[in-house]
Amino acid sequence: MIDRKLLTSIIKRALAEDLNTGDITTMSTVPKDKRINGKFIAKAEGILCGMDIAGAVFAYIDSDVKLECNFEDGNKVAKGDIIATIEGRAISVLTGERLALNLMQRLCGIATKTSEAVKKVAGFNVKILDTRKTTPGLRILEKYAVRTGGGYNHRFTLSDGVLIKDNHIKAAGGIKEAISAAREYVPHTLKIEVEVETLGQVKQALDAGADIIMLDNMSNELMTQAVALIDKKALIEASGNMDEKDLCKVAATGVDFISIGALTNSLNPLDISLKFV
Amino acid sequence: MIDRKLLTSIIKRALAEDLNTGDITTMSTVPKDKRINGKFIAKAEGILCGMDIAGAVFAYIDSDVKLECNFEDGNKVAKGDIIATIEGRAISVLTGERLALNLMQRLCGIATKTSEAVKKVAGFNVKILDTRKTTPGLRILEKYAVRTGGGYNHRFTLSDGVLIKDNHIKAAGGIKEAISAAREYVPHTLKIEVEVETLGQVKQALDAGADIIMLDNMSNELMTQAVALIDKKALIEASGNMDEKDLCKVAATGVDFISIGALTNSLNPLDISLKFV
Amino acid sequence: MIDRKLLTSIIKRALAEDLNTGDITTMSTVPKDKRINGKFIAKAEGILCGMDIAGAVFAYIDSDVKLECNFEDGNKVAKGDIIATIEGRAISVLTGERLALNLMQRLCGIATKTSEAVKKVAGFNVKILDTRKTTPGLRILEKYAVRTGGGYNHRFTLSDGVLIKDNHIKAAGGIKEAISAAREYVPHTLKIEVEVETLGQVKQALDAGADIIMLDNMSNELMTQAVALIDKKALIEASGNMDEKDLCKVAATGVDFISIGALTNSLNPLDISLKFV
Amino acid sequence: MIDRKLLTSIIKRALAEDLNTGDITTMSTVPKDKRINGKFIAKAEGILCGMDIAGAVFAYIDSDVKLECNFEDGNKVAKGDIIATIEGRAISVLTGERLALNLMQRLCGIATKTSEAVKKVAGFNVKILDTRKTTPGLRILEKYAVRTGGGYNHRFTLSDGVLIKDNHIKAAGGIKEAISAAREYVPHTLKIEVEVETLGQVKQALDAGADIIMLDNMSNELMTQAVALIDKKALIEASGNMDEKDLCKVAATGVDFISIGALTNSLNPLDISLKFV
Amino acid sequence: MIDRKLLTSIIKRALAEDLNTGDITTMSTVPKDKRINGKFIAKAEGILCGMDIAGAVFAYIDSDVKLECNFEDGNKVAKGDIIATIEGRAISVLTGERLALNLMQRLCGIATKTSEAVKKVAGFNVKILDTRKTTPGLRILEKYAVRTGGGYNHRFTLSDGVLIKDNHIKAAGGIKEAISAAREYVPHTLKIEVEVETLGQVKQALDAGADIIMLDNMSNELMTQAVALIDKKALIEASGNMDEKDLCKVAATGVDFISIGALTNSLNPLDISLKFV
Amino acid sequence: MIDRKLLTSIIKRALAEDLNTGDITTMSTVPKDKRINGKFIAKAEGILCGMDIAGAVFAYIDSDVKLECNFEDGNKVAKGDIIATIEGRAISVLTGERLALNLMQRLCGIATKTSEAVKKVAGFNVKILDTRKTTPGLRILEKYAVRTGGGYNHRFTLSDGVLIKDNHIKAAGGIKEAISAAREYVPHTLKIEVEVETLGQVKQALDAGADIIMLDNMSNELMTQAVALIDKKALIEASGNMDEKDLCKVAATGVDFISIGALTNSLNPLDISLKFV
Repeated sequence: MIDRKLLTSIIKRALAEDLNTGDITTMSTVPKDKRINGKFIAKAEGILCGMDIAGAVFAYIDSDVKLECNFEDGNKVAKGDIIATIEGRAISVLTGERLALNLMQRLCGIATKTSEAVKKVAGFNVKILDTRKTTPGLRILEKYAVRTGGGYNHRFTLSDGVLIKDNHIKAAGGIKEAISAAREYVPHTLKIEVEVETLGQVKQALDAGADIIMLDNMSNELMTQAVALIDKKALIEASGNMDEKDLCKVAATGVDFISIGALTNSLNPLDISLKFV
Repeated sequence: MIDRKLLTSIIKRALAEDLNTGDITTMSTVPKDKRINGKFIAKAEGILCGMDIAGAVFAYIDSDVKLECNFEDGNKVAKGDIIATIEGRAISVLTGERLALNLMQRLCGIATKTSEAVKKVAGFNVKILDTRKTTPGLRILEKYAVRTGGGYNHRFTLSDGVLIKDNHIKAAGGIKEAISAAREYVPHTLKIEVEVETLGQVKQALDAGADIIMLDNMSNELMTQAVALIDKKALIEASGNMDEKDLCKVAATGVDFISIGALTNSLNPLDISLKFV
Repeated sequence: MIDRKLLTSIIKRALAEDLNTGDITTMSTVPKDKRINGKFIAKAEGILCGMDIAGAVFAYIDSDVKLECNFEDGNKVAKGDIIATIEGRAISVLTGERLALNLMQRLCGIATKTSEAVKKVAGFNVKILDTRKTTPGLRILEKYAVRTGGGYNHRFTLSDGVLIKDNHIKAAGGIKEAISAAREYVPHTLKIEVEVETLGQVKQALDAGADIIMLDNMSNELMTQAVALIDKKALIEASGNMDEKDLCKVAATGVDFISIGALTNSLNPLDISLKFV
Repeated sequence: MIDRKLLTSIIKRALAEDLNTGDITTMSTVPKDKRINGKFIAKAEGILCGMDIAGAVFAYIDSDVKLECNFEDGNKVAKGDIIATIEGRAISVLTGERLALNLMQRLCGIATKTSEAVKKVAGFNVKILDTRKTTPGLRILEKYAVRTGGGYNHRFTLSDGVLIKDNHIKAAGGIKEAISAAREYVPHTLKIEVEVETLGQVKQALDAGADIIMLDNMSNELMTQAVALIDKKALIEASGNMDEKDLCKVAATGVDFISIGALTNSLNPLDISLKFV
Repeated sequence: MIDRKLLTSIIKRALAEDLNTGDITTMSTVPKDKRINGKFIAKAEGILCGMDIAGAVFAYIDSDVKLECNFEDGNKVAKGDIIATIEGRAISVLTGERLALNLMQRLCGIATKTSEAVKKVAGFNVKILDTRKTTPGLRILEKYAVRTGGGYNHRFTLSDGVLIKDNHIKAAGGIKEAISAAREYVPHTLKIEVEVETLGQVKQALDAGADIIMLDNMSNELMTQAVALIDKKALIEASGNMDEKDLCKVAATGVDFISIGALTNSLNPLDISLKFV
Repeated sequence: MIDRKLLTSIIKRALAEDLNTGDITTMSTVPKDKRINGKFIAKAEGILCGMDIAGAVFAYIDSDVKLECNFEDGNKVAKGDIIATIEGRAISVLTGERLALNLMQRLCGIATKTSEAVKKVAGFNVKILDTRKTTPGLRILEKYAVRTGGGYNHRFTLSDGVLIKDNHIKAAGGIKEAISAAREYVPHTLKIEVEVETLGQVKQALDAGADIIMLDNMSNELMTQAVALIDKKALIEASGNMDEKDLCKVAATGVDFISIGALTNSLNPLDISLKFV
């Protein structure tokens, strides 16, 4: 689910960006009361994501537009599938068309890519995570798409998760000092995660009571050793250019999570078109 | 150039999205007055874009952060190049790091892809254009990246260009009627562009006085005939899945513009990292 | 047509300006559920403009207020005509009364003045244009009023039209250089307009391929020569204190457009009152 | 004085309205660092108003622009006077030029018209007042212009003054009931004003303890009688199409205030131009 | 009554503060369509205030939630009373629960405390007033609670009342000068109030024509003398740590108003809980 | 620390609420350039909190105002202590005075009350926590005041902590189901807290792997048993009208945290005044 007020504020901003003082082509050529019927058609195979969001786009413009979906978010669609039909005032539909498609194509692309990553680690007890490498302004939508594709969300913002990196460690004077400073400061509802690069650091993090240890850019061999060393005393996240690695082998090291920036950081949109009848 | 107030409003929104009630890791582990030095390093080859934008991110957070660039937007950078150095309060730099990188990587990716398309049509008198298939909320930045890569911008919004498509034509009762309705309504500072799919439509558009004719999803053969038929009486734009075609051959048909949605609609970010000293 | 979201944002702001913490007179003296009937009456002859806008004011305050119009925007009303009737909660009607009247009177004034200018050039193939000399914050409404009065809109903003003036020419190093710099930069959907003051400049603009030539503060004689020189190779706009000239003689010079800042820059509101039954 | 934050928010909105995605003419033709000198010149005689506001426009765009004024708000300027000089980056000056002029011309027009009304009643102990018939969105600026012209301000909003009109009286069940309901509800820092049309109503208002009595659309004869009847027991405001009456004769009736909607409701801007050197 | 648009903007902001990216507990554990019934129960005796406001909270979230009240604002409720019942989607009710309770408890607390102060001065012709010592951001709600408890409102903002204090007097050069400067500047709809500390100042204020005289931190004896000196020629307000004094004795001095910062400046919330069936 | 942009937005809103169209008393009586010196004086003993926030208020209004503090947040101040001195333009200081005091008094009140609670449990290994019962719109400030007083923060919003209450349990079908639904949904950076009322529920929560168990409204005896049962396998929070209990005895039960709504839900402001020299 996506908070409805946040979604509306994204739509409002994006429509203003696209419309400025108005859609002059449509306003000049389309009669005010003309109605229109259309079909959203998948032009390629993928995981559907964003139907509610597209619905919210049209509802924001004109509560009278009807969008009927033949699939639900998370469903696989095949090339040629009619995803949904739309009916309403032509002006309203044409005004929202580009934004709805821009969002759907992007979110389907993310869901599809996530789904592929999830499939690669099937059989392992590991979760695929996103990161904060999301599109500025669209994070809650993109994190929703990751969930839709079968992935899980890492922290949403800098205030709902603690991730102590190299610079924090240096600034605090060591892993132990950083963890204990964070523990003292942040709400007890939050776990403490530390990013490490060596087994020595893994040990320090364990000793300092880290709840989650992120193994950053380690080889699979090193990760296997780290998993053994940690021995269930902390959750383990593998990170660092994971889209370029064999995810199955990473999963085999025994980590609990694999976080992949490329889920949202690179984009192959799913081609969807809106055809009018 | 990018309007500074628009840029600031994008940065403000994006930082709020990322920070929420604050960066608790940094606030708890980093001493308030600690300073930091860092380097932005290219991890791959590409066209640089977004240095001013990254600068604006840090300036928005803390006017005291210093960003010194070794390259300018539009320069080619090689793997390992130090793009820029940064110095300032650690808290300020760490707070802006993710947003600055998210924007730079994305914009460099767009500039690089555009530059590749431009290179493919070198020697032809044709311009590579973007479309409205941009990321909701980031259009002015992405269109800037297209220009940085050597491309040109199609209309920015629905109010600064007239593009009459199939549905407008149907609603207006024909190409002639649509063009004349638009001509009557829109400011005389705007040209009228019509999207056509057949030579018959090309002829109608010409007869109706279209300023620009968009050839949508035509084969190269058909486009060659259309160019001949139009005979300089209107500008000509080729459009429709152009990223999947041989751009050189499209250019050879004699069109004036090739518009490519994929410049902004799909994304291969340029990998850039910020390393602290 | 006016973009509904933009209209709502103008209404929201204007009501907040008028109400602040609330209409204390009405809140203290009028029972919460009392209903009221009223009539909008023209106190002078003029062109009606703004009925939808007034409707939007009351709808924003209270969706239950009913406004029934006896005339449409663009109609001529005579002194004493009942333009519309209104019915609803007294508190809602009284809260919106001043804003609705302030907007209607202003817009009718603009439409009426425009209509008079249009009548003066009847029979000539010339269009009356507005300018950017509009009231800060109300541009889209005032430009709508110009259209309602039979006029046409010049560019809405600095981003949907190119108008190269004296300073741009100086800065660019000449008319030719300015036009070519603009052509290279702006979307191909926009025409290039140049402001000139002499026949020499007209010629330069023509040679440089200007799409529109604005003859600024020229005598009618000079304009006649300019029209001949241009010879249909560019559109021609007459400009500069046009409200003080004999528009019929200006039209007779053969220009395509006459732009008049005074349409929106000076104001004689149409007197309209709201009488309660 | 004008609240600086309110002024900035008006400027912000108005610039966004004018610029949209940017001033493409200036961005394409003017080199980034070019500087410019200009003079604001009065093209007619009038009362100057808005220099600080124009200054705020340019300061909002670019703190580096220098505006030096040769006159102060409230001064009379003659045709040809150089009101102020400006120096700064050409792009910044050109970006703010239209908005600064639109505001100054409008405010000078209001100050000039107010000043003329004030002069007509010179020698009488009467104050010229504005009304709520101001331009939606610009009220605080226009009320400042009225003060600059020697007039006084009626209430700024519906929450800082009580003005009981016909409908309030009807809804409350009488003048006495309305006044007493308002007195019970509104802060004791506010006076109670009642609008009356007959001597009978004047008496009722007096009996009910009105602090201010507004004589609406009365003849001068009737107003003379009302003034005698009120006999200093309440302040007296003359109102209703006052711009069409002989203000001197109205003043001679002995009223304390004359309120004139037309000060802000109709507009003859003072022509001011910005010439570059 | 509370202006509905202002109320909505407070609710919008407060919900965003509480929700950020969403109520993850509820979103993860409660089925989307599950409905819920609840009762608002008073856990102590007090004056009810805020039912409409709570209703607006839920209506903002979900127009389908039904809140039925058994009491009205201003009613006394006893411990154990069921104030209202609520029915609707569980997600909507749980999302608004905390905010609705936070507001209701606070406003009931203020109304209850006000009511107690009012009771203490029963029989005297004196009104209990609030001050500007309200919670930043919630002033209109808290002033509504004061009215609900039987008190009256002092000015809402710095622009709807004139209160000349010590520093204004010093800056203006004396009480007379300050009053006359204010009289010249502010709308005639506003009374002039002056804060004084001695009988000498009372006399100066009277001579200068103050409409209201605020006796600041005076002993009851001194106030009695001041009341005699003023002799109905101005309204009189007693002020200064009034919550620590015997209000009955203050009232007996003959002042017209007693203003008490502690009505809103300190808070004993009325305990109200929402129990689900 | 408080996020500076969030703080500014609170100040902006609160000043607009207080000023509306401007501080008319100050604008009319105080010369524009007059400067003023003042002292912030403690009128009672307490813990200081909010000096940076007061500084931000004045800096927002006028960057030229100088505030010099003699104490730091968290220091104890005694009655009569000069907390800080202020110097600047009189208009700026007077404009911000009320807001600065309103915020400081409130925050000092919270810090002082928290500090008293902390003292009561000295010697025990327990932390005093706040809740979400904060003032709508001021949460980040109030949570800062709790930290300043020696307390700790519970979750800031509904998105940075999971707290499963009775209704969530019912809706999910049991404690086990609710915990597992939340675990599946929320980021792994968050702990899962469950509210329980019986030992049976404690056991279920433990078995289901709750990270934190909140003992709601339990007697001290029951809490002692719960602590033994839990045996360090989860963190333990005592909750429910804790301000009415003997905190020392609650601490003696062995819980890890005591959360107290009254820290922010009721308010005894610390009296601070600003005296001008």
